[in-house]
Amino acid sequence: MIKVGIIGATGYAGGELVRLLLGHKEAKIVWYGSRSYVDQKYASVYQNMFQLVDDKCLDDNMEEMAKQVDVIFTATPQGLCASLVNEEILNKVKIIDLSADFRIKDVAVYEKWYGIEHKAPQYIEEAVYGLCEINREAVKKARLIANPGCYPTCSFLSIYPMVKEGLIDSNTIIIDAKSGTSGAGRGAKVDNLFCEVNENIKAYGVAGHRHTPEIEEQLGYAAGENVLINFTPHLVPMQRGILVTAYASLRKDVTYEEVKAVYDKYYEQERFVRVLDKDVCPQTKWVEGSNFVDVNFKIDPRTRRIIMMGAMDNLVKGAAGQAVQNMNLMFGLDEAEGLMMAPMFP
Amino acid sequence: MIKVGIIGATGYAGGELVRLLLGHKEAKIVWYGSRSYVDQKYASVYQNMFQLVDDKCLDDNMEEMAKQVDVIFTATPQGLCASLVNEEILNKVKIIDLSADFRIKDVAVYEKWYGIEHKAPQYIEEAVYGLCEINREAVKKARLIANPGCYPTCSFLSIYPMVKEGLIDSNTIIIDAKSGTSGAGRGAKVDNLFCEVNENIKAYGVAGHRHTPEIEEQLGYAAGENVLINFTPHLVPMQRGILVTAYASLRKDVTYEEVKAVYDKYYEQERFVRVLDKDVCPQTKWVEGSNFVDVNFKIDPRTRRIIMMGAMDNLVKGAAGQAVQNMNLMFGLDEAEGLMMAPMFP
Amino acid sequence: MIKVGIIGATGYAGGELVRLLLGHKEAKIVWYGSRSYVDQKYASVYQNMFQLVDDKCLDDNMEEMAKQVDVIFTATPQGLCASLVNEEILNKVKIIDLSADFRIKDVAVYEKWYGIEHKAPQYIEEAVYGLCEINREAVKKARLIANPGCYPTCSFLSIYPMVKEGLIDSNTIIIDAKSGTSGAGRGAKVDNLFCEVNENIKAYGVAGHRHTPEIEEQLGYAAGENVLINFTPHLVPMQRGILVTAYASLRKDVTYEEVKAVYDKYYEQERFVRVLDKDVCPQTKWVEGSNFVDVNFKIDPRTRRIIMMGAMDNLVKGAAGQAVQNMNLMFGLDEAEGLMMAPMFP
Amino acid sequence: MIKVGIIGATGYAGGELVRLLLGHKEAKIVWYGSRSYVDQKYASVYQNMFQLVDDKCLDDNMEEMAKQVDVIFTATPQGLCASLVNEEILNKVKIIDLSADFRIKDVAVYEKWYGIEHKAPQYIEEAVYGLCEINREAVKKARLIANPGCYPTCSFLSIYPMVKEGLIDSNTIIIDAKSGTSGAGRGAKVDNLFCEVNENIKAYGVAGHRHTPEIEEQLGYAAGENVLINFTPHLVPMQRGILVTAYASLRKDVTYEEVKAVYDKYYEQERFVRVLDKDVCPQTKWVEGSNFVDVNFKIDPRTRRIIMMGAMDNLVKGAAGQAVQNMNLMFGLDEAEGLMMAPMFP
Repeated sequence: MIKVGIIGATGYAGGELVRLLLGHKEAKIVWYGSRSYVDQKYASVYQNMFQLVDDKCLDDNMEEMAKQVDVIFTATPQGLCASLVNEEILNKVKIIDLSADFRIKDVAVYEKWYGIEHKAPQYIEEAVYGLCEINREAVKKARLIANPGCYPTCSFLSIYPMVKEGLIDSNTIIIDAKSGTSGAGRGAKVDNLFCEVNENIKAYGVAGHRHTPEIEEQLGYAAGENVLINFTPHLVPMQRGILVTAYASLRKDVTYEEVKAVYDKYYEQERFVRVLDKDVCPQTKWVEGSNFVDVNFKIDPRTRRIIMMGAMDNLVKGAAGQAVQNMNLMFGLDEAEGLMMAPMFP
Repeated sequence: MIKVGIIGATGYAGGELVRLLLGHKEAKIVWYGSRSYVDQKYASVYQNMFQLVDDKCLDDNMEEMAKQVDVIFTATPQGLCASLVNEEILNKVKIIDLSADFRIKDVAVYEKWYGIEHKAPQYIEEAVYGLCEINREAVKKARLIANPGCYPTCSFLSIYPMVKEGLIDSNTIIIDAKSGTSGAGRGAKVDNLFCEVNENIKAYGVAGHRHTPEIEEQLGYAAGENVLINFTPHLVPMQRGILVTAYASLRKDVTYEEVKAVYDKYYEQERFVRVLDKDVCPQTKWVEGSNFVDVNFKIDPRTRRIIMMGAMDNLVKGAAGQAVQNMNLMFGLDEAEGLMMAPMFP
Repeated sequence: MIKVGIIGATGYAGGELVRLLLGHKEAKIVWYGSRSYVDQKYASVYQNMFQLVDDKCLDDNMEEMAKQVDVIFTATPQGLCASLVNEEILNKVKIIDLSADFRIKDVAVYEKWYGIEHKAPQYIEEAVYGLCEINREAVKKARLIANPGCYPTCSFLSIYPMVKEGLIDSNTIIIDAKSGTSGAGRGAKVDNLFCEVNENIKAYGVAGHRHTPEIEEQLGYAAGENVLINFTPHLVPMQRGILVTAYASLRKDVTYEEVKAVYDKYYEQERFVRVLDKDVCPQTKWVEGSNFVDVNFKIDPRTRRIIMMGAMDNLVKGAAGQAVQNMNLMFGLDEAEGLMMAPMFP
Repeated sequence: MIKVGIIGATGYAGGELVRLLLGHKEAKIVWYGSRSYVDQKYASVYQNMFQLVDDKCLDDNMEEMAKQVDVIFTATPQGLCASLVNEEILNKVKIIDLSADFRIKDVAVYEKWYGIEHKAPQYIEEAVYGLCEINREAVKKARLIANPGCYPTCSFLSIYPMVKEGLIDSNTIIIDAKSGTSGAGRGAKVDNLFCEVNENIKAYGVAGHRHTPEIEEQLGYAAGENVLINFTPHLVPMQRGILVTAYASLRKDVTYEEVKAVYDKYYEQERFVRVLDKDVCPQTKWVEGSNFVDVNFKIDPRTRRIIMMGAMDNLVKGAAGQAVQNMNLMFGLDEAEGLMMAPMFP
């Protein structure tokens, strides 16, 4: 049984980790770390866990936690994981960091977009970007995983085959993304009140959202060249779900069948990426609560562009589910253990 | 492996049966019955099941189905199950009827409230009212289960200990219930359009809803006398969830601890009924996607009434989950098999 | 032109006052008082007012405001208005207090339920409870109006004719109320985040909500005797709207026509109370954005109870709209000036 | 007093026309036309109009209506207006067609995208595209107005100044639009049920939506050349509102101030187009219920693109409000009569 510690267990992503790990046959949470609720029963913070979790919340002492667990998930704001991690800890436990601290290889880029100093740049090189479908073998051997961002996961998987195969001009990529509000976290902010979010849609972080360089870096590896994109996230009145609608110019005329073959080439063996049937558009509702990413595309011969779409649950494949998928790989388990629940509809 | 057939697999309750049974270790669906989608792929109707269910929808021929399966779930409108069931079928398979056909023992009451003729009154006596927590032993031996209604399940379990122990005057019971809109089914009706339901709450079926006699009958068994109640359902702008707020006059002065002991007496051993901590009100969100019913109460010494509350997911404990729980009992399995998923939050 | 000052102009009720007064022919806001946003443009707090309101927010200095305006609305938490009001101010301006400070005549009851000391008990007697339909003549002559609470307005108007005519036993009244989340205000609280409110319904303040004594007091005047009720509010995932479902035992057998005549007797001449047609249940959506209260009832001969229902917009008739209606009466204007906008649907 | 007839008064756009015209000083509806509800009271179909509208629904006989009214609004599906209009009618009344029948000048394009034969192509040339801000003078003299589509209104007004001034390469325009579900109409379809729309976002009509050629035609006039765009609409779980996020490549380096000056040049005098302050993103909630379009932009120097955004209420400026604005112009009234209500928030 893998012993698990969670730093940030009382945020939404932390809560989702708890939900998923309760259904995991080989893992057991032994440390529910929280800054705000120390000594309170976890189930009094998340009443859905009443009679399912009896533990109290502990603090977020990574050193102490490292002595008691096999793997630590950090589901915390940027900067915390980097400020805590050290060689002694990494020699004892595996770390899966759900924050952005180790996602971007160029520390200057990180510091510029996030506006904070990186406290542990020496581990950036070692850290593996935990997009399992792409870096599966590296994940298996990693000590430190940079769990991908929600928008980057959905954006990248929607576009990847086209970029990898060189079928689109990667400097024409425009990503228009839409997210439910759980992505904004459980902090008490006026902007996230029901009355402000309901009956509303807005763009935010236009031309400046922090997930932009993360997407660009990963697309750059696939393209074999630097990539600059436009990325615009929107807040949608729903609790879960990310939808990506991406646009790019085709480098040559292609048929539906040719593109379908390209998507199948990369995803047919993947259990969590579903290439939908022709003309079926991904919908966030069809993946809610699951670890699936549904992708599809539409060629527009009039403009010679392709529209690539992806839908996933931001808290599962976009955060906690992908983290568990990484854990499974790191510990030599079935990659899908604890993650095969069907999406819930309606 | 139990072979399962579903009549009405493409309604919301049918869809939930499919979701739950996909995660069930001892059961396998071999017949997805549907009237509207015969020969279409099930996953084209419920895209969440893409790559999880490959079967096509078949018709709803109960005779033929009975030859191929061990248990049939009928998740259809009132009247259908009663019109199809016969001795030959009941000798071959177990039937769990999610409609109201066999819930009410007095056929005249059924015919009056439902406005249709009962086509198989000869099986009413035999049918077991499948509220597992109350009729567990009878369920284990049954051929035909009347799976309880959503409102009656939540209403009854919220009130039952108080009635059973004679602590409230059962003719003062008033049940004010609130439901998400999936309870209204997947039929295309103007009243259930997003634009009509969103930002709206209304009562309906006031003083005339069909679940009234079902609740009264079950409360009557517990009280040992006839019971007349007021029951008012409301439609709430959410997809899942039922909340019951029930009121009754206390027969004598009681303390919190006395009432708590009464609830614990009946529910402490129950895995799916959670008596919440003092002063914690049930919320539908805390049980969403799960088979739990959360109950609690508040004594009002000013009016000498007690307010009893219950929350559950209408599609799970209120329909498909309870049906699977019944199946588990009928086939000698662990009652909770396939039903221990944690509620999903948010 | 009536010059208006608002203390608490940046809360939801304050914002609604601004919306309504912008469409009022005889009034003009000259002071947008706010504690949190002093010196910021009002339209930067409520972007809907961009190019419609150019003013900046000022502080909430009632003394200074009283020199510049004809009427002050206080849309603030309990206690503030009572702590500011004095004879000098009341000699200069009329005050319409949207908080609970002057609603309850018995200061001991106020202090017990609200848990704070009343700072100006000397004005309680003078203050007029501003339920226009009931106290119209007193309102016209008042200096200080206690604008009724949202739940009390809807509850009282739904029940009033039955109590006034002695047709129900007033000690059997049970009020089950449901409210949208704007009633909880614009404060940044976890409980009011979109992810906590959406797909959720819960009771709160069970057997202890502060609007209970306010409703009891007003019903008591109508009944001519002390009244004790059960009042249970619920939070519903919508932004606006209150629905009341009230139950009471009939004192004698009555027909639909008799009860309808009683409702018509009190409301036929009222422009903002609409007694719906037979069997039409009030819905919050049908009154959204308007000053209407829709009421109706259903007799249940089985239990000899009557179910009384009412729906209104909590921010309009439940707060800002009623406040403007009071202002109109106090200044001798048409009672409906600025309030005749039709409900918005969908 | 202008006498108004509405064909399709019981759809959502028709209902909004009724709401707006009830508040209009110079117009009075004398004919509520409906196909489905003939002889029913209008207020029984739209209960919000109880006691505000006493009329019954009449049929949709345009010939007869033309004898009794001054202006006819057709708020019906494509094809109906074209099949009814004739010279005799146009000589008697003005017609404002909310359908697409007369929006596209090239009848072949219309017939290709809409898949129906045009029954009155002889009036296409005469019909004025009723985007008031662009075609104000022509509208004043028109007999027949093609009221613009919802997506085209918001898309075009968000982009227009940049195209008109030649600052962007018009063949790089990509429009990603998001709409509330009232745009889909009041028809009873499974896809528009609450349970299907709630907690969901999806693209639809990808690379094939009928509003594409309408937007292209209008942008073409502004650009002085043929324009091909990508236009992708999405369905969002809200009842009202359209948000447009549009992307295009800049033809030259520009500063914020330069672009702001361009937007102000075209919109500073417009009462219904609000160019927001720097870095404020349009939100649908800020315009709900009003005739405003809020627009803004963001320059991305990294990609040398500009992101242009617009938000409006699809039922007001996107349908009924714009139709009333056109009526005001046609009859020589103040263009804003009946349309100056502030947006409702929350």
